[in-house]
Amino acid sequence: MRLLALFDGTIADPEAPHIRVDDLGLTRGDGVFESVLVVDGRPRELGPHLERMQRSARMLELAIPPVAEWERLVAAVLAAWTAPGEVAVKLVCTRGPEYGDGSPTAYALAFTVEPHTIERRLRGASAIVLDRGFDPEISERAPWLLLGAKTLSYAVNMAATRHASAVGADEVIFRAADGSVLEGPTSTVVVARGRTLRTPPASSGILPGTTQAALFRAAERAGWATKVEPVLVSDLTAADGVFLVSSVRKVVRVHTLDGAALPDASATWSELNALYEAEYS
Amino acid sequence: MRLLALFDGTIADPEAPHIRVDDLGLTRGDGVFESVLVVDGRPRELGPHLERMQRSARMLELAIPPVAEWERLVAAVLAAWTAPGEVAVKLVCTRGPEYGDGSPTAYALAFTVEPHTIERRLRGASAIVLDRGFDPEISERAPWLLLGAKTLSYAVNMAATRHASAVGADEVIFRAADGSVLEGPTSTVVVARGRTLRTPPASSGILPGTTQAALFRAAERAGWATKVEPVLVSDLTAADGVFLVSSVRKVVRVHTLDGAALPDASATWSELNALYEAEYS
Repeated sequence: MRLLALFDGTIADPEAPHIRVDDLGLTRGDGVFESVLVVDGRPRELGPHLERMQRSARMLELAIPPVAEWERLVAAVLAAWTAPGEVAVKLVCTRGPEYGDGSPTAYALAFTVEPHTIERRLRGASAIVLDRGFDPEISERAPWLLLGAKTLSYAVNMAATRHASAVGADEVIFRAADGSVLEGPTSTVVVARGRTLRTPPASSGILPGTTQAALFRAAERAGWATKVEPVLVSDLTAADGVFLVSSVRKVVRVHTLDGAALPDASATWSELNALYEAEYS
Repeated sequence: MRLLALFDGTIADPEAPHIRVDDLGLTRGDGVFESVLVVDGRPRELGPHLERMQRSARMLELAIPPVAEWERLVAAVLAAWTAPGEVAVKLVCTRGPEYGDGSPTAYALAFTVEPHTIERRLRGASAIVLDRGFDPEISERAPWLLLGAKTLSYAVNMAATRHASAVGADEVIFRAADGSVLEGPTSTVVVARGRTLRTPPASSGILPGTTQAALFRAAERAGWATKVEPVLVSDLTAADGVFLVSSVRKVVRVHTLDGAALPDASATWSELNALYEAEYS
C-alpha cells in the first residue's frame, strides 16, 4: 500500500502528478527529507527525525514548516492508513517551484515496508568500503558542502549503492580520505567490541543517526558502554560485530566486508536487535 | 515567457503539476540536466550539450533517450516559442518514479533569459574561492562520486552560491584540497594571460564546459593559444583576466576575487566575447 498526504492534510493519489517541473527539489536536489518507521501505528523516533529535518533545513537556509505541522501531517497519513505490517513514511520538503510564490513544497509519502528490507534485517548484508573523497575535518570549515545535512541531493549515495551491487555487495560503508569510517549511503555505522558500541562523530561530516541514538540509549540501559568517536577501517575487521543501522532497515549485521567474512556476530545482533525493539514495547 | 514540452512533444503548462512525488529525480536528485542557450531561434552548442547529457547519464547508469529524441524535443519547444529575446532551454532526465514502470522522466523547460543574467555578462562579477573538499586525483579512482557528471544533485552548488551572496559576492570558484582551481557551481573557469587561455582539465573532477570549448575554438581561430591544464588559485591573481563561462551567462569577467580587485580585463573580455559571438553569426 502507498498513500500520499499533501501538506494541508489532504490524502491524494501518489501516482498522480503533484509536483511542478521547475520545483527546485527536482531541478537542484534542493530540499531535505526524513524516513520514519511506523510499527503498530506508532512512529518511531518521530521527534528526533523532525528535529534533524529542521537542522538539515537550517543548513540549507530552507524555510521549512515547524515541527508541529509535520506531526499533524504524519498523523493525517497514519489516520488514513489501513494496511497491515510496518510502514515507512517519507517526509519531503523542497525549496518549492523556482518560478513560484516562494513557498516550499512539503508532503508525506507512506508505503508498506518491502519484504526484501525485512529479509535484510534477518539475513544481514555484505558491504564494501568506498572512498567518500573528503577529509573529516572539512565539515565544519566548509558548511557549503552540506556534510551532515539530509538533502535530496543523493545521486552519489545512489551511485555508490549501484557500485556495490555491480561488485556483488549489498551495502556501502564510506570512508574519509584519512581512512576513518564515515557512514553508509543511507545508514549509520555501529561497531561492537566486547560490551562497547562505537559510532563515528557527526563532526566528521556525517548524519547524526536517529536509529543509532535509539540503539545506544537501549544498549546503555542494558549495561553496554557507548562511544561516539572516530572509527578506523581497520577497526571494522577487528570488531566483534559491524552493524548498519537506519530507521526503516533497523539494525543490519554486516557479515562480509570487502569480500571477506567477518566473525559471526549473530548473537550480538540478536541481543542488540532485541534491545532496540524493547525501546518501543 | 516560459514553456514546457513533455517528452512526447506536447506543449504543457509549466505551472501545472507534471511530476510524481516519488520521482527519483525529486527524492534522490537522481537524474541529469543541461541548459542550452537559444539566440534568434537557434540553439547554441546543442550537439555538445546533448553528448554531455548522454555522458552524464552513462555515469549514472541512467537509461536516457537517444540524442535524436532530445533534438526533436528542443525543436518542439522552439516551434511553439513566440517571445522575443534570448531563451534558455533546460533539458531534464530523471530515473523516473520509484514505484513506476521504470521509464525515465524527461522534459524541456524553456524560459526567457532574465535581465539580471544579461546585466552580469556586461558588468562582470565578484567571486570568492571556496574549498570543494576533494583532491583532483580522486575523480577517476572513485567514479561513484559522479565528479564531472551534470546531475540534479546540485544542493552543494546552490549552498555555495548562497554562501557567496551572504558575504557580498556574486559567484564562487571551487578549489580542490591541493589548491588547484576546479570550476564554478554553474560555470567553467577560464584564465587569460598574454595571448593564452587556460582552463582546468575535466580529469580533475569537473564538468567539461560546452561554452568553454566554443570559446577556445573561437579564440584559437583568432590566433590565441589554448591550454587545458591544471590552474592554481595563485594563477587567478596573476592572470590578465579571469572569466566564468557558461551557456546562458556566456562569458562573465571576474572583476573582484576574494574582495580584492583584479587587473582590469575589460578589453580582453570584449575581444573574447566578440570572438565567442562570432562563432554563431
